[in-house]
Amino acid sequence: MKVAAIVGGVGGARFLLGVKHLLGMPAVGEAPSEHEITAVVNTADDMWLHGLRVCPDLDSCMYTLGGGIDTERGWGRAEESWTVREELAAYGAEGSWFNLGDRDIATHLVRTRMMRAGYELSDITAALCDRWKPGVRLLPMSDDRVETHVVIDEPGTGERKAVHFQEWWVRYRAEPKAESIVPVGADEATPAPGVVEAITDADIVLIAPSNPVVSVGTVLAVPGVREALRKTEAPVVGLSPIVRGKAVRGMAEACLAAIGVPSTAEAVGRHYGSRSCSPEGILDAWLVHTGDAADVPNVAVRAVPLLMSDVDATAAMARAALDMGGVDLA
Amino acid sequence: MKVAAIVGGVGGARFLLGVKHLLGMPAVGEAPSEHEITAVVNTADDMWLHGLRVCPDLDSCMYTLGGGIDTERGWGRAEESWTVREELAAYGAEGSWFNLGDRDIATHLVRTRMMRAGYELSDITAALCDRWKPGVRLLPMSDDRVETHVVIDEPGTGERKAVHFQEWWVRYRAEPKAESIVPVGADEATPAPGVVEAITDADIVLIAPSNPVVSVGTVLAVPGVREALRKTEAPVVGLSPIVRGKAVRGMAEACLAAIGVPSTAEAVGRHYGSRSCSPEGILDAWLVHTGDAADVPNVAVRAVPLLMSDVDATAAMARAALDMGGVDLA
Repeated sequence: MKVAAIVGGVGGARFLLGVKHLLGMPAVGEAPSEHEITAVVNTADDMWLHGLRVCPDLDSCMYTLGGGIDTERGWGRAEESWTVREELAAYGAEGSWFNLGDRDIATHLVRTRMMRAGYELSDITAALCDRWKPGVRLLPMSDDRVETHVVIDEPGTGERKAVHFQEWWVRYRAEPKAESIVPVGADEATPAPGVVEAITDADIVLIAPSNPVVSVGTVLAVPGVREALRKTEAPVVGLSPIVRGKAVRGMAEACLAAIGVPSTAEAVGRHYGSRSCSPEGILDAWLVHTGDAADVPNVAVRAVPLLMSDVDATAAMARAALDMGGVDLA
Repeated sequence: MKVAAIVGGVGGARFLLGVKHLLGMPAVGEAPSEHEITAVVNTADDMWLHGLRVCPDLDSCMYTLGGGIDTERGWGRAEESWTVREELAAYGAEGSWFNLGDRDIATHLVRTRMMRAGYELSDITAALCDRWKPGVRLLPMSDDRVETHVVIDEPGTGERKAVHFQEWWVRYRAEPKAESIVPVGADEATPAPGVVEAITDADIVLIAPSNPVVSVGTVLAVPGVREALRKTEAPVVGLSPIVRGKAVRGMAEACLAAIGVPSTAEAVGRHYGSRSCSPEGILDAWLVHTGDAADVPNVAVRAVPLLMSDVDATAAMARAALDMGGVDLA
């Protein structure tokens, strides 16, 4: 079976672990399998930092699926150290609000060097995955530079300005209200090689319970992705990242507020919309958390537990999604 | 008093410590002083490694004079760790034969970022020194890219090829015979801002006991430097890096052999030559080690202890050089 998934970083990575588990793949490393999972990963969180190209979502997926993640923290490398960051701060280098670990920096060095040599992000990602063997084909949504910017009143100065998403999210903990959120460059980006084909050729497409605005939303903003999702013969099943009116992880509410979408499973389902009846809709089915109600016109809705508390619980979510899509594993 | 010195890396840095000590400056940090030391530092050892611009000699000087050097090893940062290097090796990245420490990498990140932003190496060096306060003005010999290449028969393949000096020196421990040594780019380079002025305005110019070929030699290969040394009104005094027919540090013999100069204090002194009587000469005086004899036509020669065993011994060497130059400290 061919599974395609649209994912963000930490939550998307965890979701993919569940899908692997469901399909009988080992958590770490590749193994022969009749199944194939392709993840289309958000890259609009990417940024230049200290002259390094940092791709938080791709790396979260790669480290998580390759066994290198710090499982307690949920991001970054296990057994990480922070010597370089400390030294950069001693030089007064800007950007020390972003936690770059020493092990992580090696990834960015390899990536940046390849990028400077002219390789595309998709090639570079494949090269990095040669080491990590995530067992999932990780595709950046695009090889083009797309960066989510957030318009805020800057803390301290009160000055209205656009900052990189990471600066708002990590430095300011998403506390200043987001006046708007714009995936800069998305409108001129093209999907990375394999992205449209993965969606078109899939037996099922899953929209991971990732941030609907700055993860899934930015993938959808790349011209061609939404069209592929609307045209594919595979069922498209989404999983709500909003449980009981709150984001399970992260600060998705602050992002949803910026685009005028209430933080409810129903509102997010409606925001994604029906593939058959909404002009821009992408969903055939929508999974919400047990106890949450959602009426999404022309989209099948079912409530199941949606907390990725462990890999079994996550695999059960993936199984429910496959069921909703009418796909039989056996 | 204004002292200018032509220096390489580890040995040059140690020599500068002795000059500082002699002039009553503290070993670490800047202090008000009526004296001014400018070091013109070899940059032909510099290289791109993992996408980072690495300047071994500038950094050896900066760390040594700024109190950040690993004094036992003689190079690199104190309390260094090697996590990034280990990870780069796990990615199979080329260049892991060169020891880049984590703390050191922060320096290269700051430098590379500034370089990409268009700053010149001399500006960048000044910015890095804002942190280290070496007490000596460190000037790269040139802001232009100059890289010493060495023609060898490659170990293993036997193939004749030109490799970067660092590859020959660090990776191959200078074992394959150097057929030739060429400072690529030197002939089109110009001295960095301040270099010629430092030599011209000095009260004395010292040629540190650094490698005569790949340190001092490459500085001299930048058009304008030799001319400034020949024209300055200051006395130019050199110190022999060859003691009892052997290099005190490093593998200078292998470099001297490549240019056909015997490894003796006399031969190196003759190689530098007399400022007054040789068409390309730069020396007024030449210090050799106690017990070494040297006849260098039209150059004053004196034998004094030339082992930089500690800062007092090194300061005594500097004092002897000042004496030779007829410069009075008091």
